Amino acid sequence: MYSEFIIETPLDMHLHLRDEDMLKLVAPLTSKNFSAALIMPNLNPPITTKKDLLNYKERIKKASKNENFEPLMTIFFQVDYSYEFLKEIKDEIIAVKLYPFGVTTNSETGVASMDVEILRPTLQSMEKLGIPLCVHGETKGFIMDREKEFLPIYESLAINFPKLKIMMEHISSKESIDLLKKYDNLYATITIHHLLLTLDDVLGGMLNPHNFCKPIVKRPDDRDALLQLVLNAHPKVMFGSDSAPHQKENKECHHGSAGVFSAPIALQALTQLFEKYNKLDNLNKFLSLNAQKIYNIKAKKKLIKMIKKDFTIPKSYKYNNEEVIPLFSNETLSWSIES
Amino acid sequence: MYSEFIIETPLDMHLHLRDEDMLKLVAPLTSKNFSAALIMPNLNPPITTKKDLLNYKERIKKASKNENFEPLMTIFFQVDYSYEFLKEIKDEIIAVKLYPFGVTTNSETGVASMDVEILRPTLQSMEKLGIPLCVHGETKGFIMDREKEFLPIYESLAINFPKLKIMMEHISSKESIDLLKKYDNLYATITIHHLLLTLDDVLGGMLNPHNFCKPIVKRPDDRDALLQLVLNAHPKVMFGSDSAPHQKENKECHHGSAGVFSAPIALQALTQLFEKYNKLDNLNKFLSLNAQKIYNIKAKKKLIKMIKKDFTIPKSYKYNNEEVIPLFSNETLSWSIES
Repeated sequence: MYSEFIIETPLDMHLHLRDEDMLKLVAPLTSKNFSAALIMPNLNPPITTKKDLLNYKERIKKASKNENFEPLMTIFFQVDYSYEFLKEIKDEIIAVKLYPFGVTTNSETGVASMDVEILRPTLQSMEKLGIPLCVHGETKGFIMDREKEFLPIYESLAINFPKLKIMMEHISSKESIDLLKKYDNLYATITIHHLLLTLDDVLGGMLNPHNFCKPIVKRPDDRDALLQLVLNAHPKVMFGSDSAPHQKENKECHHGSAGVFSAPIALQALTQLFEKYNKLDNLNKFLSLNAQKIYNIKAKKKLIKMIKKDFTIPKSYKYNNEEVIPLFSNETLSWSIES
Repeated sequence: MYSEFIIETPLDMHLHLRDEDMLKLVAPLTSKNFSAALIMPNLNPPITTKKDLLNYKERIKKASKNENFEPLMTIFFQVDYSYEFLKEIKDEIIAVKLYPFGVTTNSETGVASMDVEILRPTLQSMEKLGIPLCVHGETKGFIMDREKEFLPIYESLAINFPKLKIMMEHISSKESIDLLKKYDNLYATITIHHLLLTLDDVLGGMLNPHNFCKPIVKRPDDRDALLQLVLNAHPKVMFGSDSAPHQKENKECHHGSAGVFSAPIALQALTQLFEKYNKLDNLNKFLSLNAQKIYNIKAKKKLIKMIKKDFTIPKSYKYNNEEVIPLFSNETLSWSIES
């Protein structure tokens, strides 16, 4: 029985911080508890130039209010990035993020075709320069099949670019696990909500728009397969919250936005989960060590002391006119962060 | 090419009219265009006594504002209904509706166990008296499997009570069709939304709470199988809209209610659908004749003239403080009702 537990240098390898007031609301909630986070570039318009990237990084640093937090920046994949551009920006980014057109929030400028020949020039440059690729791997098919349908594309990328590190972002289905294990250059991030929720938590009872996300949470056997991988800290998986805040009124409406906001409750929920299955010894691998090995980075040490003490999750987080409802709003977890 | 089409005596064999202001808002929208409708008894508290039934019927008639409309009443299944009670109420009702506990709106007083021996006394009385049984056939399993998991219960009921007419309400999956065809005493209602939507229309793009219902709309192949059955006017299926109005603010919220409101657009949408597949000749069977044969009733003649003319569906329907968003809100159908 643990009554406390030290998380060493937690990393969130998939995070949406947005901009403006929303950035000011959510950045401190991550910067306080994480050593670093990989920041997604899907602003509107997306981050595609060095100037926009550096400016966004500055805004994040300012909003974070914490010197001891590093935003790991990404740019939005474009088929026409030149080798020279990628070489110039290489030291400023940790990865390039690829969105197929129209699959999620602000992906309207994503790539129209996943044809490997169309993607080849950019991916070849990245491979040469050692820049990893992060992918939102979904087709535009039936919602429950989109990730599964995308697997042949992952496979084709893995085969065609054997030295390119490919991150299967926020995997949600058991079929993805088999492919992940098959190719040396495939890795994956996994969210909290895909470990703890199924489609029943979105619409099995009342409709809960705050559990609605892309990829959608799936069947119990998908969740259980992901859970086994994570609890055993499989070396190819790392934590990426995909925490994706939207204003309350853009979730609770006629056309609700996709995204679960989990950043401020992530460490508490993961500690509770790993303790429940007697796997706390693996938590630091999932939350930090695996990612450092996969991305070949050395994160700045940051110790977070977890205490076995009830933590009632706020109903919402607010800043100026922004209000965001977190995952498990108003529920109580059994672990807190020492304040 | 049709430019007009006469619907003869349309019947909605599964309808929620609610009570109070909501009743006043929605009843005229059905009574104007339908000859009769089977009214579901899941008020809060549900209709379980003759007095409540007759009072509710009076309120419906008053709210309907149309002499040429017949509410076909039902009561809420209880395991302790006596033979004498059922005999006394027989001429006032068209069926008894069974809800398993907790599967949908106002089913908190539904039956706790679907054990056939527990249900036997009531069902045996109904069988003797010739009162049909309508069933919301879902378990409490994973949302996409609930109807499929319920099929053995339907089968057990069909075998144990061979002279009881059992209506499989709002069937939503292809597996239900096979069972429907297997037993002579099984029949089914089918909604518009299960013919036209899939899970993608709830959460494949943005989240649309107005397409959220129980049973949930399912996969494309489920929808297509239901469509084939309906377009060919299979004699064991009839139209039941399951039109289930909820206030806008109870749909667009943190815990949204289940139900699609389709009553005022049903005839237009069905005419468009049957015309699209060149099956208009079968529309009156699905909308009227099949139900009259299945329930052995003679509905009062009512002719509705459909015209091929654009009909833009209102964004919402309002009465006092009630506001309900209809299916396909603000979209345009190619058929109108002659006014």
